[in-house]
Amino acid sequence: MKNIKITVEYDGTNYFGWQKQKNGVTIQQKIEEAIKKTTGEIVDVIGSSRTDSGVHAKGFIANFKTNSTIPSDRFREALNSKLPGDIVILKSEEVPDNFHARYSSKGKTYCYTILNKYEPAAIGRNYVYHVKGRLDTEDMKKACRYFIGTHDFKAFKSTGSSVKTSVRTITNLHIEIEGNLIKIYISADGFLYNMVRIIVGTLLLVGISKLKPEDIKKIISEGQREKAGKCVPPTGLCLEKVFY
Amino acid sequence: MKNIKITVEYDGTNYFGWQKQKNGVTIQQKIEEAIKKTTGEIVDVIGSSRTDSGVHAKGFIANFKTNSTIPSDRFREALNSKLPGDIVILKSEEVPDNFHARYSSKGKTYCYTILNKYEPAAIGRNYVYHVKGRLDTEDMKKACRYFIGTHDFKAFKSTGSSVKTSVRTITNLHIEIEGNLIKIYISADGFLYNMVRIIVGTLLLVGISKLKPEDIKKIISEGQREKAGKCVPPTGLCLEKVFY
Repeated sequence: MKNIKITVEYDGTNYFGWQKQKNGVTIQQKIEEAIKKTTGEIVDVIGSSRTDSGVHAKGFIANFKTNSTIPSDRFREALNSKLPGDIVILKSEEVPDNFHARYSSKGKTYCYTILNKYEPAAIGRNYVYHVKGRLDTEDMKKACRYFIGTHDFKAFKSTGSSVKTSVRTITNLHIEIEGNLIKIYISADGFLYNMVRIIVGTLLLVGISKLKPEDIKKIISEGQREKAGKCVPPTGLCLEKVFY
Repeated sequence: MKNIKITVEYDGTNYFGWQKQKNGVTIQQKIEEAIKKTTGEIVDVIGSSRTDSGVHAKGFIANFKTNSTIPSDRFREALNSKLPGDIVILKSEEVPDNFHARYSSKGKTYCYTILNKYEPAAIGRNYVYHVKGRLDTEDMKKACRYFIGTHDFKAFKSTGSSVKTSVRTITNLHIEIEGNLIKIYISADGFLYNMVRIIVGTLLLVGISKLKPEDIKKIISEGQREKAGKCVPPTGLCLEKVFY
């Protein structure tokens, strides 16, 4: 039995996130169906994380066990021929039996994209969060540095998940400007539920001068969810890379 | 009665092109419906061109006559509140009574985007044409120059349109590379039916070395449709700007 690791790009617009559920079609379900059509096997595809409805991925990682004799690197094309156009397998490869897309992960990088202009976009509207008013990106950049490091991020977590600890290490948080787009890159050893989207919502409060960059320090130390910003929409969020 | 000019961005993925028709929903129809909801008037919205099904626009121009007292520049927000997210009015302004989005036009710029990598894209797949094999973009750039100028482009026209002459002036045709994207910009005083998409299809023959750059000269002078390349898909095409 082989353990196959796949790297997946997907447009999450039309899915109820990664994980299988009763309410709607998910990416996990689509990939498991494609494997069944390819090998005849019913497998559990393990994902590196549970992305929410509407969230995208450029480098999602998953793995599954198979008895198929299809060469490992051929799964890519075999599965792509069975998948809809909004899910693409970029790579398939055999990995050691103990590789687990979720538990073996050492960290992830997400990118959140804000479109900062008066009019919304028609083209690419599913990949950005539109913010009408002008944002102070210099202050937002200053605010970023207060998040970096090992902190208890309980102020930046939505309820509904049960985790042992809300301490996480943010290894990188920086902003890149591309025309009207503000791209917020964030890397950490792990993320709490909605953590990226709440951090971005808090950076937006800095961007509209409702918070000063240095206020971030206090919000982290006080640990009160209501002091942080709102959870911004999923459309702007994209899982860029998973580290192992 | 005022003459209102609107600048429109749209994602053509879910539309049967610009012009009203019986077979499906079009952008013209959606805008006329939005005007009816806003002013109560049934108007004819005149478009600068008839973009095909699946073609996008960043700067489409249209105009319509209205008796409404809504200030001209307020039509933008009024219409946007009635339009779906894939059609956005970027600007509305009053123009002289004789302004006609189509007849007053002096030229247009289109951009055709090719994604040139082995795997297709999931994210942004509706805005590109995926070409798997490596393209020789240097030869494609060399080929561009043979198109520029005033020529009879009858080899680069699909049947089904009746025009008096197939002579057009291409004022600019150049290629920009952005990572895996090949962006082909083309400006002319007017375009024949499918002209941009057939020119791109012909440039692709140069890109895979089935044609030499200098062959373009002969294809133009001979004027035979079958010597030119195929008409590439609409997804990669975007109307960038209309000149007046």
